[in-house]
Amino acid sequence: MEPTAAPGQPPAVVLPQNPSTLLPAEARELFRAGLVTPTSGWSAGYAQANLIIVPKAQAFDVLLFAQRNPKPCPILGVLDAGQTSSALLSGGDIRTDVPRYVVYENGVQVDQPTQLDEHWRDDLVTFIVGCSFTFEAALQEGGIRVAHIDQGVNVPMYRTSVRCEPAGSMAGPLVVSMRPVPASQVADAVRITSRYPAVHGAPIHVGNPAELGIADLSRPDFGDAVTVPPGHIPVFWACGVTPQAAVMESRPALAIGHAPGHMLITDARDSSYLVP
Amino acid sequence: MEPTAAPGQPPAVVLPQNPSTLLPAEARELFRAGLVTPTSGWSAGYAQANLIIVPKAQAFDVLLFAQRNPKPCPILGVLDAGQTSSALLSGGDIRTDVPRYVVYENGVQVDQPTQLDEHWRDDLVTFIVGCSFTFEAALQEGGIRVAHIDQGVNVPMYRTSVRCEPAGSMAGPLVVSMRPVPASQVADAVRITSRYPAVHGAPIHVGNPAELGIADLSRPDFGDAVTVPPGHIPVFWACGVTPQAAVMESRPALAIGHAPGHMLITDARDSSYLVP
Repeated sequence: MEPTAAPGQPPAVVLPQNPSTLLPAEARELFRAGLVTPTSGWSAGYAQANLIIVPKAQAFDVLLFAQRNPKPCPILGVLDAGQTSSALLSGGDIRTDVPRYVVYENGVQVDQPTQLDEHWRDDLVTFIVGCSFTFEAALQEGGIRVAHIDQGVNVPMYRTSVRCEPAGSMAGPLVVSMRPVPASQVADAVRITSRYPAVHGAPIHVGNPAELGIADLSRPDFGDAVTVPPGHIPVFWACGVTPQAAVMESRPALAIGHAPGHMLITDARDSSYLVP
Repeated sequence: MEPTAAPGQPPAVVLPQNPSTLLPAEARELFRAGLVTPTSGWSAGYAQANLIIVPKAQAFDVLLFAQRNPKPCPILGVLDAGQTSSALLSGGDIRTDVPRYVVYENGVQVDQPTQLDEHWRDDLVTFIVGCSFTFEAALQEGGIRVAHIDQGVNVPMYRTSVRCEPAGSMAGPLVVSMRPVPASQVADAVRITSRYPAVHGAPIHVGNPAELGIADLSRPDFGDAVTVPPGHIPVFWACGVTPQAAVMESRPALAIGHAPGHMLITDARDSSYLVP
């Protein structure tokens, strides 16, 4: 996918040659300067994260929704109301360091800004949620190709017919990401990703998209379609876009997320989320 | 430890011969009928849990405190405000099914009732927090003796000099439980318990109580002392009494916990918290 710029403006920053080698702070600096691109494959070895930002009054419902749905919503960190940085993005600013945001009012997208200056409020609580991009380096090291990286596109994501456990005002469908895996490597993909429970862990489903209510793999709800080669099985992982799907359904007055696939790159090492 | 009754009353219920074989619902029925006893070794194979119950107005701070301190405060479930049962205690009642409770007002213990009828309010939110008793059966199956079970006493627990990560109004010390382990089996104890991250997981410390600010192992802050035989190393696990220590320090108007060692016995299988 080509990096995109705000309408009517040339790209402010050029896509780096080899984003996998950038340190997280270097990547965040590019996004702060205006680069807009999916982040899969960036800063190999460092954890990437989803965002969900809500006013303090909604924060308990969001945190409880995450607690009750730990596969799609593994919380890596929570910034206090009005707080804009933390050890997960040392020296960074949550309002500027993500490639693109989505702003929801009453559950409807009203803006997709590249920074949050005009939307920020001092009562906003930021939830940093694990992302499956984190285990993609481990998949690759295990000899499993990651199709959307190879094909240079965003990961395909789908709303499913599986309902999340509701919490207070928050309810919605499970969202999943999909990676096609050669049938001979499905067990390895399960084994490898199950060791990363904080970033969605093991797949929630292997092989039958219809059972998840996904009619057509070539038409993802978020991100880009990827080719599923013959002999490959579609494997589905819980996805951190799930809180945003709940926001769309539950219609809080204000909520802010990241643009799907356009993640916060944190300073946490992938390995810090590895369990035995 | 002998079962105890409310002051001035004879024990209403007799301690069963072999509590390890009771189903959780059978154990909860005994506690509901008035039996008061530590629960280590009860209902082998089923997860035991700590309680922290606070008014809805404090619930976000408690949940965030738990999120930021997952080793001592692994949340297994949250009951909505006023809710008194859930799938973790099917057919049970959170107000009666724990052997003994502790009620705090402004951080001070004001009551240790065996049921909560007169303290219950419809705005109370119940947090069910993982307990290290859950992995004791796995330790025993791994050939590691559990001293407080062998000695028939409550597990020793200690306030440490390690501070938890604060969250809003909640701040306090890390509380730990201690089990003496033969030096030759310490590695096994780490390996076995690390597979149960939802019930405190791997030890947080091995071998040097002074470094945790524990001056005298024979004087635990909660529970009972156990003998540490020669050649045994004291091994420390994060403990779910930690939220109560934070309550004592942070002084919310009202909070309710379980009496340390006197746990909720849930219907969840130990094995459901096992990771690869």
